[in-house]
Amino acid sequence: MNKTIEQLLAHRSIRKFTNQAIPQSTLETLIACGQAAATSSNVQAVTVVHVTDINKRARMVKLSGGQSYVASSGAFLVYCADMNRPKWACENQGGTYAAGMTEQFIIATVDVALAAQNTVIAAESLGLGICYIGGLRNDPQQVADLLRLPDYVYPVFGLCLGYPDQDPEVKPRLPLNAVLMTNQYDASVFPENVSSYDQTVRQYYKTRTGGKKDSTWSEEMKALVGKESRVHMQEFLRQRGFLQK
Amino acid sequence: MNKTIEQLLAHRSIRKFTNQAIPQSTLETLIACGQAAATSSNVQAVTVVHVTDINKRARMVKLSGGQSYVASSGAFLVYCADMNRPKWACENQGGTYAAGMTEQFIIATVDVALAAQNTVIAAESLGLGICYIGGLRNDPQQVADLLRLPDYVYPVFGLCLGYPDQDPEVKPRLPLNAVLMTNQYDASVFPENVSSYDQTVRQYYKTRTGGKKDSTWSEEMKALVGKESRVHMQEFLRQRGFLQK
Repeated sequence: MNKTIEQLLAHRSIRKFTNQAIPQSTLETLIACGQAAATSSNVQAVTVVHVTDINKRARMVKLSGGQSYVASSGAFLVYCADMNRPKWACENQGGTYAAGMTEQFIIATVDVALAAQNTVIAAESLGLGICYIGGLRNDPQQVADLLRLPDYVYPVFGLCLGYPDQDPEVKPRLPLNAVLMTNQYDASVFPENVSSYDQTVRQYYKTRTGGKKDSTWSEEMKALVGKESRVHMQEFLRQRGFLQK
Repeated sequence: MNKTIEQLLAHRSIRKFTNQAIPQSTLETLIACGQAAATSSNVQAVTVVHVTDINKRARMVKLSGGQSYVASSGAFLVYCADMNRPKWACENQGGTYAAGMTEQFIIATVDVALAAQNTVIAAESLGLGICYIGGLRNDPQQVADLLRLPDYVYPVFGLCLGYPDQDPEVKPRLPLNAVLMTNQYDASVFPENVSSYDQTVRQYYKTRTGGKKDSTWSEEMKALVGKESRVHMQEFLRQRGFLQK
């Protein structure tokens, strides 16, 4: 155990921020930390759009399903998977870009997540709170239009950063045995582990909501993956130049 | 600046490890740190297969294109995007799994990368070194067979962990201005920024290789994205139950 590990284990999303701004120099340090993350073949397929325009912030609140902290957080960043920059470099060298590869989509999406998580860890080490905004994928075409994203770039998620104005509990996770396996996948651990976790989650919600929310992880998974979600994503990505082959 | 930020900025991949083992309790702490990362709707679509079997490690070296440290590192983890566990929970509640959604593929892949990066930061805070192994996607079907991965699970990358037996330089990254934009995407910054970075990269390689390697970022991008790569990925993922719609 050390301070870094304690910090990682203490993570919780923050959805209420003070109106204290984040200095530009701090923001740049956080982005530099993101850049320092591993990147596949040094492709660095990450572009971060810092949204400071209040009208664009307000639009982003709507596009992400009414999450008000997208406007009220100290900073709002849109993390984009960006194959346009390596394409530009390739063409500048006289090459022809091999567009649409699923492998490139994976590389760029993973690059984005690694960089964002580094920025998150750096931010939390400075006392900031964060919240990822997957809701930007509700209407990614409008996000792309608003930020004038070119082809071969897509918004993976947003990230709110700011000084916390709340102190929520850490959300419990699945038992380690349900996610760490040795030498081969073993689904036989699910019944016991998921059942025990279901009760942990139920208790967590009851405590947090004063008894109002009564739900288990399994029930939430049924609601989440028991129906189709963001059905536009494949077509959107193909039109952007991703996942074509 | 603080110690966490200094650590993040000092990251470099390690490809040579001492033969010191990583205690199981340390490994479990590292995985718990990964679990503490943000996860979309708490789906926790991450399964980590710890490969201890020496025959499987040897096979993984071959499957990843001959990267010997896949066998010689203190630990080798395969990070899997896992929609099989939420599917199991959904069905256990009487639901019907909505398979094949591209959105789910994004969620699971991002979940994996966030968790892995937390584990990496925790590992490095303990003096361990790491190396991501994207090469597992060279032949992901064989990896899946070797680890008996069920449908709706795919290996995103491997991760070598161990005590470093080398001390490489930090690799320079693109100028901040090339990746951090304000309110809208702006490709006009590329010519100047990429050109200056090309020279930085050339100098970095020259110094590191005693003049042997003479290449720029743009030249490497031409080689990387100027041709198709891992052309099997789309079909592999569809057969696994991903990216079908």
